[in-house]
Amino acid sequence: MTFYPAQATLREVGLRDGLQSIATVLPTERKLEWLRAAHAAGLREIEVGSLVPARLLPQLADTAALVAYARSLPGLCVCVLVPNLKGAERALETGADLMLVPLSASVEHSRANLRKTPEEVVAEVARMRAARDASGAKTLIEGGIGTAFGCTLQGHVAPEDVLRYMQALLDAGADRVSLADTVGYANPRAVRELFERARVIAGERLWCAHFHDTRGLALANSYAALETGVTRFDASLGGIGGCPHAPGASGNAATEDLAFMLADMGIDTGIDIDALLELRAQLAQWLSHETLHGTLWRAGLPKTFKAAQAVDSLS
Amino acid sequence: MTFYPAQATLREVGLRDGLQSIATVLPTERKLEWLRAAHAAGLREIEVGSLVPARLLPQLADTAALVAYARSLPGLCVCVLVPNLKGAERALETGADLMLVPLSASVEHSRANLRKTPEEVVAEVARMRAARDASGAKTLIEGGIGTAFGCTLQGHVAPEDVLRYMQALLDAGADRVSLADTVGYANPRAVRELFERARVIAGERLWCAHFHDTRGLALANSYAALETGVTRFDASLGGIGGCPHAPGASGNAATEDLAFMLADMGIDTGIDIDALLELRAQLAQWLSHETLHGTLWRAGLPKTFKAAQAVDSLS
Repeated sequence: MTFYPAQATLREVGLRDGLQSIATVLPTERKLEWLRAAHAAGLREIEVGSLVPARLLPQLADTAALVAYARSLPGLCVCVLVPNLKGAERALETGADLMLVPLSASVEHSRANLRKTPEEVVAEVARMRAARDASGAKTLIEGGIGTAFGCTLQGHVAPEDVLRYMQALLDAGADRVSLADTVGYANPRAVRELFERARVIAGERLWCAHFHDTRGLALANSYAALETGVTRFDASLGGIGGCPHAPGASGNAATEDLAFMLADMGIDTGIDIDALLELRAQLAQWLSHETLHGTLWRAGLPKTFKAAQAVDSLS
Repeated sequence: MTFYPAQATLREVGLRDGLQSIATVLPTERKLEWLRAAHAAGLREIEVGSLVPARLLPQLADTAALVAYARSLPGLCVCVLVPNLKGAERALETGADLMLVPLSASVEHSRANLRKTPEEVVAEVARMRAARDASGAKTLIEGGIGTAFGCTLQGHVAPEDVLRYMQALLDAGADRVSLADTVGYANPRAVRELFERARVIAGERLWCAHFHDTRGLALANSYAALETGVTRFDASLGGIGGCPHAPGASGNAATEDLAFMLADMGIDTGIDIDALLELRAQLAQWLSHETLHGTLWRAGLPKTFKAAQAVDSLS
């Protein structure tokens, strides 16, 4: 008998990972609406943007303003991506609850996307930790290991490398670590095997699983991770966030689909899925339907959905 | 550590479950091409149609001719759906290797779709078994329990009912039994729990898992079933076979996506996925793209795909 957790947390990453790969610049007012509605639908962790120079990602240039607004929403863990010490210093200034530092386990992907080797990212995390501790801020540092299952540039990524970087991130002072299938190379078996090994290294500091649906496996991979004890998942509304190397391919796990899967299994996410589907319809209008993915929105919730939750809460 | 099987079998059901729900009548010549190409791509079990009166399902009126052709393809297990004794007698005449008898665990669905109660289907299976034994034919009888996880008409379907019908089908002489999530009500937890209980009842006679992707969970559910020891899965090329109660919703698990998931996990299905993707593109032309689903076809196989298989065969 597999053990399933009573609760799980979804972290909405559409405002960062989703919008980052969409050329359309969503106006700040719309993003605030998104934040407000996502929070109202029950999401309690949201990655609101990326603290990088505006010339690199004009879509995310308003991140500091979003952090400020998000901090006003009760009970929300406000996450922000930071690529380097300078971004981390800005994150500390904004008062974000968590800063996510991406490390790419694929050396080629790391050079191409981060302009650093994985070892250089680890060294930067040590500097971030020193800056955080010196500042007295409570902002958590999460080391997010991307391309953990392979990558379009390098192909194979060895699990041993991933686990070595994980240990190095923890040694450098990361409070938490995560594993991400950045470009859709994971399968449930690989997920299970890597997360089981990662758990041995990081224990409760193994924080989050991040899957893309590039080849349809985001939910199967999420389930495989859940079985290893993961209870926190990244996802983006409408599955936005396609891979630049596979035009038209699906993006992140869709928040509404993953929320449905977990809730239907009797795992409490605190999310009102009807409200999330309404927000998805809204987002589809803002972004045009072509960039959205996911499946639940077509069929809607099953007839038994509420009943299943009620039955479960009694058993 | 979870045990994964070395091999798994996909049963292509697009020619029956897929075409059944599509108004377009695919000409017999196209179906023969599909059969030929599917066999060439490595599929070794195909449900070629349904032996029902042509006025009920004109799309499948050529089933007997397809059985005859399919029998000429080496090593192919030729499956055909039969709703009643009359269909079974025709199946015995055609020399099909396996006849699949649908039983709907939802009494309301059973009445609406089969015009019989589940108990009446069990009684019919006993008559089919007698007819098969009297004929001397080797055609296997598979009792396929549909709406095993819930249904749009009735809502909740109790696992106890499903398991009771499974035992009754075996007692009535079914050689094999299967569980089907006919309208997309399953989740991985429910799959795991029901298949584990079914295994206790049916042992090795628990034959096949049949999932629909109505709410995006076909692959996650397949993985959950795999973990309970299932090594045979129904799937349809391009995921055709939508639910009539959810217009536009996804259909069956897509053969190409499921084949990819299993192969990427190092599980041998004998399927050439590139060939399958070519056939899918062909089918998309025949049927128009709107009726096809699935995800792999957009992104294609990952760079590491062949390598992953080679690495796996060494480990």
